[in-house]
Amino acid sequence: MFVASLIERKRDGKPLTADEWSELVTEYTAGRVPDYQVSALLMAVLWRGMESSELDAFTQALLDSGDRLDFEDFLKPRVDKHSTGGVGDKVSVLLVPVVAACGIAVPMMAGRGLGHTGGTIDKLESIPGFRTGLTLDEAGRQLRSLGCAMLRQTSEITPADGKLYALRDVTATVESIPLIAASIMSKKLAEGLTGLVLDVKTGSGAFLPGPDQALELARTMIRLGDRHGCPTVALLTAMDRPLGRALGNALEIEECILALQGRGPADLMAVSLALGDEMLLLGGVARNRADARRAQEEAITSGAALEMFGRMVEAQGGDRRIVDDPSLLPQARAVEIYRAPEAGVVSQVEPRQIGRAIVELGGGRRTLDDVIDHSVGFVITIKPGDTVSEGEPIASVFARDKAGIDAAFRVLSHAITIGGKLESLPLISHRVTAKGVEVLP
Amino acid sequence: MFVASLIERKRDGKPLTADEWSELVTEYTAGRVPDYQVSALLMAVLWRGMESSELDAFTQALLDSGDRLDFEDFLKPRVDKHSTGGVGDKVSVLLVPVVAACGIAVPMMAGRGLGHTGGTIDKLESIPGFRTGLTLDEAGRQLRSLGCAMLRQTSEITPADGKLYALRDVTATVESIPLIAASIMSKKLAEGLTGLVLDVKTGSGAFLPGPDQALELARTMIRLGDRHGCPTVALLTAMDRPLGRALGNALEIEECILALQGRGPADLMAVSLALGDEMLLLGGVARNRADARRAQEEAITSGAALEMFGRMVEAQGGDRRIVDDPSLLPQARAVEIYRAPEAGVVSQVEPRQIGRAIVELGGGRRTLDDVIDHSVGFVITIKPGDTVSEGEPIASVFARDKAGIDAAFRVLSHAITIGGKLESLPLISHRVTAKGVEVLP
Repeated sequence: MFVASLIERKRDGKPLTADEWSELVTEYTAGRVPDYQVSALLMAVLWRGMESSELDAFTQALLDSGDRLDFEDFLKPRVDKHSTGGVGDKVSVLLVPVVAACGIAVPMMAGRGLGHTGGTIDKLESIPGFRTGLTLDEAGRQLRSLGCAMLRQTSEITPADGKLYALRDVTATVESIPLIAASIMSKKLAEGLTGLVLDVKTGSGAFLPGPDQALELARTMIRLGDRHGCPTVALLTAMDRPLGRALGNALEIEECILALQGRGPADLMAVSLALGDEMLLLGGVARNRADARRAQEEAITSGAALEMFGRMVEAQGGDRRIVDDPSLLPQARAVEIYRAPEAGVVSQVEPRQIGRAIVELGGGRRTLDDVIDHSVGFVITIKPGDTVSEGEPIASVFARDKAGIDAAFRVLSHAITIGGKLESLPLISHRVTAKGVEVLP
Repeated sequence: MFVASLIERKRDGKPLTADEWSELVTEYTAGRVPDYQVSALLMAVLWRGMESSELDAFTQALLDSGDRLDFEDFLKPRVDKHSTGGVGDKVSVLLVPVVAACGIAVPMMAGRGLGHTGGTIDKLESIPGFRTGLTLDEAGRQLRSLGCAMLRQTSEITPADGKLYALRDVTATVESIPLIAASIMSKKLAEGLTGLVLDVKTGSGAFLPGPDQALELARTMIRLGDRHGCPTVALLTAMDRPLGRALGNALEIEECILALQGRGPADLMAVSLALGDEMLLLGGVARNRADARRAQEEAITSGAALEMFGRMVEAQGGDRRIVDDPSLLPQARAVEIYRAPEAGVVSQVEPRQIGRAIVELGGGRRTLDDVIDHSVGFVITIKPGDTVSEGEPIASVFARDKAGIDAAFRVLSHAITIGGKLESLPLISHRVTAKGVEVLP
């Protein structure tokens, strides 16, 4: 194929055909089209976008490049959730056992931390022994026996996406709505789902901060899901401040255990339950939203969700005792309390700075080879709108040493604003389905 | 250097620093920055453009990547001409001996055919024995002894541009005004010139057909020349029809010999003499335009220009006898006359179709490995505005065989329009200098 003419066409704002996209992905994955042509094409896509017929074909080609989870003769509904990423976003770890306890099978492939955001896989790996590298066979068996599995993306699934993602990462071509949508949806479609719920973050801590971009991404993914026979619903949720209180891998696992015991922070519970409602409705195990909510709350108060979590930890090789004794999770050597430097109303807790600080403390990767210190992070107990008095404890910092504490304190002094204009996004602002956008009250 | 962040910045429409451009070119040429990052950056440049400080630094870095012609202790003015390319544009072959005979040293590095356009190097190589692959040392010696040399770009000159050009060619990143300007000007600046004249083509047969683009390219190159101490002037000339009558390598050499004998077609003479005027003025060997024109005409009528051409052919290993006997040039096996299919006024002779037809006849390259048949091409004796009668001979076709003749006839039947609206660009429309743009009468 004459790739330069395809690049030229996209560069000039004209679409490629479905066959051209399909052949291009196949030839690239096979190593017969060089990286330097694909990176120029990706930049042209970032500039010009993709028509929906192009995006369908591109996503299908990514999907077709690898294997899928096979659910022949599997009768349960299979619904997953995907989040576009944020700071303190530990929803998956809480949500999966809750909805699995309600009768939804969840085959969740999740990712590692990226940039300033944490990753579900990194969080789970803070549990001693927990194996995220399941094969598709193992995941399939666990799903049949237990009802949920949480694993990292394997090389069996959408290898074309893996190769393209690595190229996009080093060529500044990540931030394209069609490319993001195709990457996410090809992986999710490979899970063999009967439904998908998207948590699209907005605000300063999101990868696409603007609400318009978030809505466009949501609509793009919903359309792709529908085209591929996977009904998809999205909620837009706030990432202009961290979600929950705990920020950092082991700290977030501990917060999820508390939440599964019915003691989770209000914002985390609200987001998780709202996403869970959508999953139960899509899966057809609840007749309406009220039923869905009741079922989830019952799963928590009865202890069924916590039991499901414990079993999953055990099934994947982890130390199940953490459920009763979270002190078995990695513990930071240095812990100090951060106090409000002045009295007033908290106007901002800026998530991007805090996310970066966790990486700097050792809780995330600066290069692919970095080994994570799961114990570090923050517990921030205030939210925008809260009133604090001078000297009141508002956060705890968990670090390796005093230098880490000092650096983290400096970040908190910038990231937390007391006084000033309070601007805070609604926690859950929009619900997007194939039928349209609903602005939530 | 963290190249992804440079790509990201350019992608977002923000400039890179001079040092960043310089380091990037150095590192890329040394093989320490991969093609796939540079191709994404080039696409971002095509999208976002370059600020003038960026373009200066980028051009300087290309120039610094290789050697230059060394003219220490050389007292003569050194002025070259560059054309952005067209069909039938054999001006260089005529102009170089004329201005050299007037006392201007011309160290011309020229190119091969590109796309539908012919190349000076291909034309010269139709002369039996003519060597275009001079080293810089050889070119320097010939310039001192004779006063002109015409050579192809060597690997000694701007190797970074050579590497980048090859990458642009396969990644659809050729058509960017700053990238075109930097590529041309870095090569010309390496010639150690005291002045440069640009022939910027406009119209359907030009690479940048629109007059606005042509003007922007001219202004960009003039600014670069001035910044680097090389006064530069541009003429915008028409490429909405072929230049002269002969189209094809050997045929064009023959037309140049006729022109050096004072028998050239009017449009070719007008463009060549106008560009020559500018060269003589820039070189300071004429006090004014009238003197410059007189000197050139005298060089032709006296035979001095033809003698200069003969000596150059001889100095570069070519068969000098072609000057007196052009039948020693490669001759086509099949020649046929094309006649006007109807009576009327010629409204169009479309150069792009004719240029492509020459390539198809074997007179240009479809791939880098193609061997050129120098004998093929067209002699088209009519121009837009001419009145023809039905059956009047208006062109000769030179081909390898009958199939070539038939194909060429089909092209002529589409490329030459009789009747219809006559729209023809002025032959020389604008003169551009550092001071501004002059619309010519």
